[in-house]
Amino acid sequence: MSDIIVQKFGGTSVGSDERISAVAEIIKQANEKERVVVVVSAMSGETNRLIGLAKTFGDNPDTREFDALISTGEKVSASLLAMALSSIGIKAKSFSASQISMKTTNQHSKAKIIDIDGDKILASLAEGIVPIITGFQGITESGDITTLGRGGSDTTAVAIAAHIKASRCDIYTDVDGVYTTDPRIVPEAKKLKSITMEEMLEMAGQGAKVVQIRAVEFANKYNVPIRVLSSFEEGEGTLISLKEENMENALISGIAFQKDLTKFTLHSVSDKPGIAYEILNPVNDKEIGVDVIVQNVSVNGKTDFTFTVDSEDEEEVKKILEDERTDIEFEDLEVDNNIAKVSIVGAGIRSNAGIASKAFKALAAENINIQIISTSEIKLTLVIEEKYLELAVRTLHKAFNLDK
Amino acid sequence: MSDIIVQKFGGTSVGSDERISAVAEIIKQANEKERVVVVVSAMSGETNRLIGLAKTFGDNPDTREFDALISTGEKVSASLLAMALSSIGIKAKSFSASQISMKTTNQHSKAKIIDIDGDKILASLAEGIVPIITGFQGITESGDITTLGRGGSDTTAVAIAAHIKASRCDIYTDVDGVYTTDPRIVPEAKKLKSITMEEMLEMAGQGAKVVQIRAVEFANKYNVPIRVLSSFEEGEGTLISLKEENMENALISGIAFQKDLTKFTLHSVSDKPGIAYEILNPVNDKEIGVDVIVQNVSVNGKTDFTFTVDSEDEEEVKKILEDERTDIEFEDLEVDNNIAKVSIVGAGIRSNAGIASKAFKALAAENINIQIISTSEIKLTLVIEEKYLELAVRTLHKAFNLDK
Repeated sequence: MSDIIVQKFGGTSVGSDERISAVAEIIKQANEKERVVVVVSAMSGETNRLIGLAKTFGDNPDTREFDALISTGEKVSASLLAMALSSIGIKAKSFSASQISMKTTNQHSKAKIIDIDGDKILASLAEGIVPIITGFQGITESGDITTLGRGGSDTTAVAIAAHIKASRCDIYTDVDGVYTTDPRIVPEAKKLKSITMEEMLEMAGQGAKVVQIRAVEFANKYNVPIRVLSSFEEGEGTLISLKEENMENALISGIAFQKDLTKFTLHSVSDKPGIAYEILNPVNDKEIGVDVIVQNVSVNGKTDFTFTVDSEDEEEVKKILEDERTDIEFEDLEVDNNIAKVSIVGAGIRSNAGIASKAFKALAAENINIQIISTSEIKLTLVIEEKYLELAVRTLHKAFNLDK
Repeated sequence: MSDIIVQKFGGTSVGSDERISAVAEIIKQANEKERVVVVVSAMSGETNRLIGLAKTFGDNPDTREFDALISTGEKVSASLLAMALSSIGIKAKSFSASQISMKTTNQHSKAKIIDIDGDKILASLAEGIVPIITGFQGITESGDITTLGRGGSDTTAVAIAAHIKASRCDIYTDVDGVYTTDPRIVPEAKKLKSITMEEMLEMAGQGAKVVQIRAVEFANKYNVPIRVLSSFEEGEGTLISLKEENMENALISGIAFQKDLTKFTLHSVSDKPGIAYEILNPVNDKEIGVDVIVQNVSVNGKTDFTFTVDSEDEEEVKKILEDERTDIEFEDLEVDNNIAKVSIVGAGIRSNAGIASKAFKALAAENINIQIISTSEIKLTLVIEEKYLELAVRTLHKAFNLDK
């Protein structure tokens, strides 16, 4: 029997009747070679329309009802897509979360998938019928409707692919793949033929929002290769591979970056065991995500402790640190929201010591000062003054020959 | 414990956020005195919007998908109404057909209700939560979504009322009750305080489309009193009672009428047993509804046989009768679509012989010729030339003092 692939189509891909017809043609072609399972988002604009309706009854609508309401968007697009396929001679059936028992946790609007009944999907395939599944939603044990949070349809697609042992999950969107960096900043940015999941996680976490990070993590955990491609134009897209299958993979895959960050530095903290925990635990307790964390070696028992958060959390973190002042001794607190982060991502970093120095040299040549350096196995992160961000991205993109 | 009532709100009643808020207030008030179960239609316009989307993929969309698509309309209004209730301090929960196991037959777009799981509804009431149920839809044994056909929400409401032994089913709509006749033709028409189900069936069948005839039949079968009232203005509406509970009920409840009919008369048919069956059976086989049927006593073994159908079926009936000509002997066929039907409806007809002659006298005074007379226990039907219809309705309305 032919392989099973899961095709997921986002909101812009099914944003109108013409787009739905175009997607039906894509499915038709794939269906000639492989057995296809489809996952769809709501038509673009529909979820926002429904949210708008809900907001007329207050800013904090009942979460159970909110999920029941917005989950109708995917039901509409799934049925329409099934009709579009029928109209071109392809047998298709829509399935809601309840119809395939897509069980999730009870947390409305951010539920997590627990289990799926793959039987209906496989039975449908066995009859030669393309199953069209509503993304983004599930049901609780007691039958209430839940949603997985924005972008959750990617996660639905990967979860189904993992569950029915699909050979690949194709995520169709309005961009044609993953690029070496944002083409709006570096017009020479190149589309990657493939990227490893680890690299993709580092790229996605930095704002390369091609595919939801949760979906990539899920794909990583269950070994499902993902391909990101466009439903608007032909092309092979970018394969997010399970491992470095391709020896020709470049050392460096891309340059990621992020603005709107705030850097906190606690000067002259007493360097005693557990100090990092003492500082950051109250921040984590408020569910504020801490990004870069740097602590240098101490001098005379004192050290400087620096971390960054999203700028929207700046005020709350300030308040936490001031309340803590009695517990943690430090000389003074420096708060700087005039920064940006640029990261070099690539599997080559772990094995190639020359990469860091090449990056430093290139930035120095442009007089860009590096405030913080942080490294991981496959990523080198640099915090710089915000105004230099675009220049830094272009400089690094060129230094590592990513435009070639 | 207080009585349970079912309140059903139609599309115009929940047609906007303001309307939904108004409906929430109606429910809140009722909820102070009784335990309330709510059934809702889709917001007015929504079902047509969804049908429009479906039609872009051909005029005959897959029926399973069509039902799955349009059933989302009631899900949206049910969730929004639950939110509106929460926002004014009333606990409420929406339930889809699948969540209350509203089982139906498999006939998509005209499914019939088989069974309901009332436990979730009753459990919700026991917790002090108002259940808001999606009208118009159900699920098949295998979990596919079905719809009951236009106006099916009335039937949903009555079926639920019957199942959970509600004391009454209140149908909220955009008219404030059942009138003695159409106020557009007779401005003096009066709202009835009550009407029996039998009378209502006769009125509804004749085009008084206040409440779906299927729902009234259902209510009749399961002894559920219905009240028809407006969600736009205060008032007691019209009670459709189980029997003539009110001795003050008028002899005559109203004047119903219908246009766009075609009358077929077979002249000089041989009057032998089974002739009516022979003539009408092929018509019934094509699922064409036959309305008035009249056959007078025969003279010399010959009789005239007359029946009426909706004008839209005229051509097909003509064809059937011409094909039949070889089997049934008749002299000639008269086809007349220049007719209308006016009916006097009232429980008093069965016991009061003077009603027919009073009607004949009143029409004669206006020179309106009566072509056909047909009587039932509670209805006197007259077929007249179409141009006299409005005059006949006004004349009869006045003759029976319905404006008093």
